[in-house]
Amino acid sequence: MLSVINRRTLLQTQRRFSISHKVCALRAPTAKDEEVLMDLLNNRKGAIINDPEILKKYNSDWSGQYIGKSPIVVRPKTTKEVSSIMEYCNSEKIGVTPQSGNTGVVGGSVPIKNEVILSMEGLNEIISFDEDNGILYCEAGCILQTLQDKVSSDYDHLVPIDLGAKGTCMIGGNFATNAGGQYFFRFGSIHANVIGIEVVLPNGNILDLMTSSRKDNTGYDLKHLFIGAEGTLGVITKVGLTCPRLPRARNTVFLACNTFDDVLKTMSCAKEELGEILAAYEFMDKEVLDQVASEKKIPIVNEDGENYRFCVLVETQGSNDDHDNSKMESFLEMTMENGHVIDGVMAQDLSQVHEMWEIRESCNPVIKSQGCNYKYDLSLPMKEYYDIAEEMRERLSSRTDIMVVNWGHVIDGNIHLNIITPGKFDVDQEVKDLIEPYIFESVVKRGGSISAEHGLGQCKNNLLGIYAKNDRVLSVMQNLKTFFDPNGICNPGKFLPTKATP
Amino acid sequence: MLSVINRRTLLQTQRRFSISHKVCALRAPTAKDEEVLMDLLNNRKGAIINDPEILKKYNSDWSGQYIGKSPIVVRPKTTKEVSSIMEYCNSEKIGVTPQSGNTGVVGGSVPIKNEVILSMEGLNEIISFDEDNGILYCEAGCILQTLQDKVSSDYDHLVPIDLGAKGTCMIGGNFATNAGGQYFFRFGSIHANVIGIEVVLPNGNILDLMTSSRKDNTGYDLKHLFIGAEGTLGVITKVGLTCPRLPRARNTVFLACNTFDDVLKTMSCAKEELGEILAAYEFMDKEVLDQVASEKKIPIVNEDGENYRFCVLVETQGSNDDHDNSKMESFLEMTMENGHVIDGVMAQDLSQVHEMWEIRESCNPVIKSQGCNYKYDLSLPMKEYYDIAEEMRERLSSRTDIMVVNWGHVIDGNIHLNIITPGKFDVDQEVKDLIEPYIFESVVKRGGSISAEHGLGQCKNNLLGIYAKNDRVLSVMQNLKTFFDPNGICNPGKFLPTKATP
Repeated sequence: MLSVINRRTLLQTQRRFSISHKVCALRAPTAKDEEVLMDLLNNRKGAIINDPEILKKYNSDWSGQYIGKSPIVVRPKTTKEVSSIMEYCNSEKIGVTPQSGNTGVVGGSVPIKNEVILSMEGLNEIISFDEDNGILYCEAGCILQTLQDKVSSDYDHLVPIDLGAKGTCMIGGNFATNAGGQYFFRFGSIHANVIGIEVVLPNGNILDLMTSSRKDNTGYDLKHLFIGAEGTLGVITKVGLTCPRLPRARNTVFLACNTFDDVLKTMSCAKEELGEILAAYEFMDKEVLDQVASEKKIPIVNEDGENYRFCVLVETQGSNDDHDNSKMESFLEMTMENGHVIDGVMAQDLSQVHEMWEIRESCNPVIKSQGCNYKYDLSLPMKEYYDIAEEMRERLSSRTDIMVVNWGHVIDGNIHLNIITPGKFDVDQEVKDLIEPYIFESVVKRGGSISAEHGLGQCKNNLLGIYAKNDRVLSVMQNLKTFFDPNGICNPGKFLPTKATP
Repeated sequence: MLSVINRRTLLQTQRRFSISHKVCALRAPTAKDEEVLMDLLNNRKGAIINDPEILKKYNSDWSGQYIGKSPIVVRPKTTKEVSSIMEYCNSEKIGVTPQSGNTGVVGGSVPIKNEVILSMEGLNEIISFDEDNGILYCEAGCILQTLQDKVSSDYDHLVPIDLGAKGTCMIGGNFATNAGGQYFFRFGSIHANVIGIEVVLPNGNILDLMTSSRKDNTGYDLKHLFIGAEGTLGVITKVGLTCPRLPRARNTVFLACNTFDDVLKTMSCAKEELGEILAAYEFMDKEVLDQVASEKKIPIVNEDGENYRFCVLVETQGSNDDHDNSKMESFLEMTMENGHVIDGVMAQDLSQVHEMWEIRESCNPVIKSQGCNYKYDLSLPMKEYYDIAEEMRERLSSRTDIMVVNWGHVIDGNIHLNIITPGKFDVDQEVKDLIEPYIFESVVKRGGSISAEHGLGQCKNNLLGIYAKNDRVLSVMQNLKTFFDPNGICNPGKFLPTKATP
């Protein structure tokens, strides 16, 4: 494999680089700045938050792992207001942390120090829906689930992005982090579905990269540069997104496999038998199911009432109920007959579909309460997908108080590997040193990615040059950052390395 | 509609911009340069072409409309050779025109003056196919059809790009022009299917943007910047492309409609009834069918033996023959019953499928021989898709020797509007003045795009700032060009404007 070789070379040779992108000294916002910003927001009530109690929520992520010290949250309601805020902060060299739903797991939307928090929650208008082309236009602060509900109920279409945090995350944040989620296999990434964006550059300039055409080959396709850039090149204020028609039929099954090889064989069979209606193939191991079982009933367990070694959630979405049922039956027959699937249950109605998805979507929130989480969001070659979990268990085997729990989008090669130690916020340095950098080196050796869909934020930014990109690519990235954000005010301390690598 | 308004504003206000990106004086390659280049290519036989007779082919596009004056073609066989050529030409300020299959219609791969032609035909290795993930890795100079054949016969997968020029065009050129084609609706653009690229920057640096993961959120997603950039930021040397499984069933029908409204209603019905198996919905009007009929038998004609007003080619690709047939039957029944379709025929075997596609793919080559072609590749709002053709007929009605013939990917809103005047290479200035800029203004007023999939090249580059992008966006594009190519050696005179707009 081409890239495996490249990555291996990377590991051996790319250990040094200099941080070449200019980082200005940014200053803390003062009471005077607050006045100016309030003025720019037309002295609107609630446009600025400086109450220390309310600030706490904005200064911290949901896991409580990342804590910033911002003295002020600004809450614009229009692109023009975002523009004037950015222009002012840029001229004054004040750092700005754009914040959408703040549901990320790498601290990307929490300030490092005293940056102004730019909350996008006020830009929450659905602009229009083009029914001829199936295109949704909306502001960046719209909640994903609100969009899903509106698009399906009013327009009979489907938002092609779905993830556990849908009730809180915002579409602009989804774009800025190139969010993947459970239907990535079916609909592709945001790069596949974006029609346009509007973005405010660090200097306040508004860049209109919107279009109403599905095809438009006029000039460099700049919009892709801002997708997944975690707000370090500018602030996304509006998006245009293609939406497929709402499926008429939806079938969801929960299946059990004895071995990981059976999980893969069943997946291959699903691709073959379910073909174009296969929408999701989600993976959970016994370890995570045991945790989820404390809060939700797992739909299938073995004769002793225990969770199976592995479970998968398979969903189809199609246009013809009879055809889809027949395909699903043929798939189930085949996998049961060849013994790759040992038990299974099919959702009988939409509420059972939702129950199955709740199991899958509970994995992350449930383990949050179990101890201190070390979270890894990895891409791996299909055949080695679960090897990394076994390897980490072996490596940590001397510590019987540690759990290695796993779930993920196996059909995309994306595993969410979580290591849990007792004690909620007490980082166990001995354990951490056993995990890192070992796990990253193992992933790179296998030709995978150390961040499949969660991004870098302030958690993995310093790993970028060690385990992901070589000096040359990193240098282009750093120079591009300087090109768009010469003062470095946009989400400082995130995404790109802030430390030279060893 | 958001963007319609934006575009309308554009038309009224964005008439001026300065060409801010630095354009160095480039020099012509000399005999001395030829020696150095030959040396860089290890004095390999055939590595350099300077025979005036053979040069003609490389200096001209297939239509004969664009003629360059390059004295030399270089034919590297490896990325390293491309790198050394670029490094030398950059240091010597010699322009380089990358050339793949040279099948474009906007003169993007033909030199303007005496640039060195960098032919990619020597980089034609298929590197590997990842069967677990369905990913093809190959060099940029592979012929599209060669890849299609190999991927389907050896790996049971499908290259998600298909276009009429497949027998000649190369995958690197497809990437560099963000080629659309007939299955765009089903599989999305190259942005949706790219896994990675390797690109040689103008200074010779090799940028490895390859990965073996479908999901990889580490750093700015630079690869998208080079897709559709027409070789003005660097030379794509390798690509990684996701390939879906080969469909088990394929149904193709050729249908006739009386009105364009019927074409749209039939399309809507196809989306509804064929759902996830709908793969292509291609449009041809009577005018183009009349031309094609001189070379190919059109499968359906009316009682008088004449071509119907409009025909569409509808294709399904799916995993179950019975299900697909049943869906197709239900679609046909519905459209015949409601009268939107007045005649139709279904391909009975693969050779009939190919015959139908040959009709559609003949549109472009057939009209080439009919006179002087004025070609327009436009995106339009669905309801106004054919209005532009009627409008141009009306505008040119005083000239009875002019034909306005149309075909295209109606499901993407993409029309190929062609105006034909007698006399192969004799540009009729009176006619041209009637067409342009009127047609572009009409497209912009309607909220469409003046280049849907063909790009800009040397044909539409000077329209970019007038009919597509506002000053601010254009300025970012020009500065990005300078960022990557400070000496302006990469495909000079293309893509970005070379003239100030009126």
